[in-house]
Amino acid sequence: MANNTLQVLLKRIKQIVGPENVSINKEDLETHAKDRSFHSPVFPDIVIWPKSTLQVSEIMKVANSTGIPVTAWGGGSSLEGNPIPVKGGVSLDMTKMNKVLKVLPDDLQVRVQPGIIGDALNKQLADYSLFFPAFPGSSFLATIGGMIANNAGGMYAVKYGVVGDWVLSLEIVLANGDIIRTGNRSFKSVSGYDLKRLFIGSEGTLGIITEAVLKLTAIPQKKFAVMVAFPSITDAAQTALLLLRSDIKPAAVEFMDTEYIRLVNLARNAKIPEKPNIIIELHGDEQIILRQLKVVIKTCEEKNGKVYKKFISEEENRQLWNLRRPPRDVLPKILPNTGVLSAEIGLPLSKVEDFLIKASELGKKFEVQTIMFGHIGDGNFHGWALYEQNNEKSWKKVTKLNELLVTFAIQAGGTTTGEHGVGIGKRKFMPIEHPTSIDIMKNIKEMLDPKGILNPGKLLPGK
Amino acid sequence: MANNTLQVLLKRIKQIVGPENVSINKEDLETHAKDRSFHSPVFPDIVIWPKSTLQVSEIMKVANSTGIPVTAWGGGSSLEGNPIPVKGGVSLDMTKMNKVLKVLPDDLQVRVQPGIIGDALNKQLADYSLFFPAFPGSSFLATIGGMIANNAGGMYAVKYGVVGDWVLSLEIVLANGDIIRTGNRSFKSVSGYDLKRLFIGSEGTLGIITEAVLKLTAIPQKKFAVMVAFPSITDAAQTALLLLRSDIKPAAVEFMDTEYIRLVNLARNAKIPEKPNIIIELHGDEQIILRQLKVVIKTCEEKNGKVYKKFISEEENRQLWNLRRPPRDVLPKILPNTGVLSAEIGLPLSKVEDFLIKASELGKKFEVQTIMFGHIGDGNFHGWALYEQNNEKSWKKVTKLNELLVTFAIQAGGTTTGEHGVGIGKRKFMPIEHPTSIDIMKNIKEMLDPKGILNPGKLLPGK
Repeated sequence: MANNTLQVLLKRIKQIVGPENVSINKEDLETHAKDRSFHSPVFPDIVIWPKSTLQVSEIMKVANSTGIPVTAWGGGSSLEGNPIPVKGGVSLDMTKMNKVLKVLPDDLQVRVQPGIIGDALNKQLADYSLFFPAFPGSSFLATIGGMIANNAGGMYAVKYGVVGDWVLSLEIVLANGDIIRTGNRSFKSVSGYDLKRLFIGSEGTLGIITEAVLKLTAIPQKKFAVMVAFPSITDAAQTALLLLRSDIKPAAVEFMDTEYIRLVNLARNAKIPEKPNIIIELHGDEQIILRQLKVVIKTCEEKNGKVYKKFISEEENRQLWNLRRPPRDVLPKILPNTGVLSAEIGLPLSKVEDFLIKASELGKKFEVQTIMFGHIGDGNFHGWALYEQNNEKSWKKVTKLNELLVTFAIQAGGTTTGEHGVGIGKRKFMPIEHPTSIDIMKNIKEMLDPKGILNPGKLLPGK
Repeated sequence: MANNTLQVLLKRIKQIVGPENVSINKEDLETHAKDRSFHSPVFPDIVIWPKSTLQVSEIMKVANSTGIPVTAWGGGSSLEGNPIPVKGGVSLDMTKMNKVLKVLPDDLQVRVQPGIIGDALNKQLADYSLFFPAFPGSSFLATIGGMIANNAGGMYAVKYGVVGDWVLSLEIVLANGDIIRTGNRSFKSVSGYDLKRLFIGSEGTLGIITEAVLKLTAIPQKKFAVMVAFPSITDAAQTALLLLRSDIKPAAVEFMDTEYIRLVNLARNAKIPEKPNIIIELHGDEQIILRQLKVVIKTCEEKNGKVYKKFISEEENRQLWNLRRPPRDVLPKILPNTGVLSAEIGLPLSKVEDFLIKASELGKKFEVQTIMFGHIGDGNFHGWALYEQNNEKSWKKVTKLNELLVTFAIQAGGTTTGEHGVGIGKRKFMPIEHPTSIDIMKNIKEMLDPKGILNPGKLLPGK
């Protein structure tokens, strides 16, 4: 951005939000240049922290009239470059709009500002024995606004669905500054086109979320889990499928391949059998889930699974998810100069086994170390492909591998992205996954953001 | 439609679908003139039964180029005039596209044509111990295409959600004849804008559904239910809320007021206590739901509820839902010359009690007999207001009453319609419920159907 344009903008924005809520300091620009993905940082020209919907509206009016890009910022925890301001302009940091506006326990609802962090929200809701169950693994960092904008999933999606399933209504500021509300507080509504769902998962490219009403549910009495090692990927995948076809409704069914377990053992000083493992977690009344746990264990054992450990107490449950937490931290120690291309796709359940075998074969063929894990209960997989840093050839190999696996997922009837979003890295696959409907997406984008100022360079190729 | 226009159209359509799949016979026009709502019949000019997606595409091309309205027809079971061809033109009867294309048990999915009836689908799925759980009370008649187009709910929505929550992907023919696909077969997907949700519940105003992939779930081992009579609406409503805030997840929580019970007793020769009643149904493993049933009964009794009957066997479950079935058939016998305005709204749970009391008060004030029942577990209520047929004054009173109750729902944070859709009767409330976002709905309609030929006169005022 030209310096004089920036100065004019800065002056105007300071009038709107006050000088303490605007910054062009290098450190601030730097912390808003990069999420937790492998994508390169791009600095915004200016960071703004709005404190109200009206301020967001005023900011958008200024940006729209001057054609300055605006990219919303939440916890910076996304994994596909979603909030990187690739065209510069404004990073609109929503984290000062972080209040719980009203808990409505008799409605099983809460009204929140977008900047509140997932875990912070659930901490406040615990007083009411309620919780917002659809949160990603990064809920210690991710904001509700970011979760909605990305329609985040997570390990409990098998039972509870994804974030979008728990959003009842949204307040949104459009590109031109208009403030709209969509949805309502009835659990069921078929009153016209479901605009709410258009904004959920739109990654800040159609509007800025400034408020949300979320549906809540009762905190389960107990959480019991079991981690089971299998002799092969086939046994593990088939067991997961058996459990999902039964009328037990697990809260989580997670998969970790042998390589992932190896890293976990190193990173957390654990001794999990170095084989494909699955985790099954059950939520509910103690007697009920004890009974279900027996069925789960029996099913696993019939498929050659060996129970590594049961996790019954709350403390053990924390241990479990600490074990499951991606062991990224150990990588630089054991494999210096190694980068990670973090990929993710969604599949029909019956294709899970083929996919895992394909990934392993391609890894061997390309001589790339692959590490697979994820939400097998939803057919939603994460994969890491390791590459040598500053080695063009190595980077090309992992990108090619990623491309082949994403294409496999699409051809198998699945999707480019199950929960990370399109962001930067998945844009090129959009015309392949949506050959007949991508034009409608483009038309919607043009309708709601004709100047293309909302998070440009994301989601749709050419936008 | 002018006769020569009709003859030209008829000739062209016969070439597309064959002469046996087109009709301008009075009986055929008549059966496509009216759904099960209180809205007046309007005859289409022509009924067409397409047998393939390509035929639908060809029909739409003809209709679009000539500006002839096309209104899709499923089971004719809707309750808001949704498929009444109010501007004449084509009634596109989808019931010859009624095949199960593929059951995918290992994916927990089924691929279907839109014309299959809900119960017929579940009958075929029973062989796989799977079912499509989100069906309306009219699933003996309603087609899957109609259910998706209306995003139907039903009595099991408390546990399983609504139809739209079980749709994975759709094939749709647009107004101009283009065939698109949206969604995919992964349970989780965040790949671009959620266009699928735009078509779900759009009541045939944005496109014609020609194929769907649905998510399925395991048939529960057992269904136990209990019907409980309460001394007051307050006790009944508060008990429902207590159950919903607990970590028991009932499959159904239904409400019937005293008047409804009176009609049921007359219609089904039953002896249910003539007080406000609720039904609670539980699905799952026998031991588990037996345990839950005890908790449910204890909760009801603590709120002065008296168990009328437990329904444990499959036969008893059928009896239960036969008792709950709206006793419309008895009305002409006991109240000849009486019409029924069937209304429906959605509310936040905490407003249910106020709403029921308000309805009762307004009924008294207007001297109108009201009968309230519905899905209290979702805050989704049905109401009948009885009027004298061919009495303008009586009709005006019930419409005014309906208007006041819908307005109450909107002001309480609820919605104009929880499951019947906007159709004809709720159009006038759309600008009231969606003051800031209705323009976006209109723009989307104009974008996808610029000539306004898809189900004109529905959903949006002025469209």
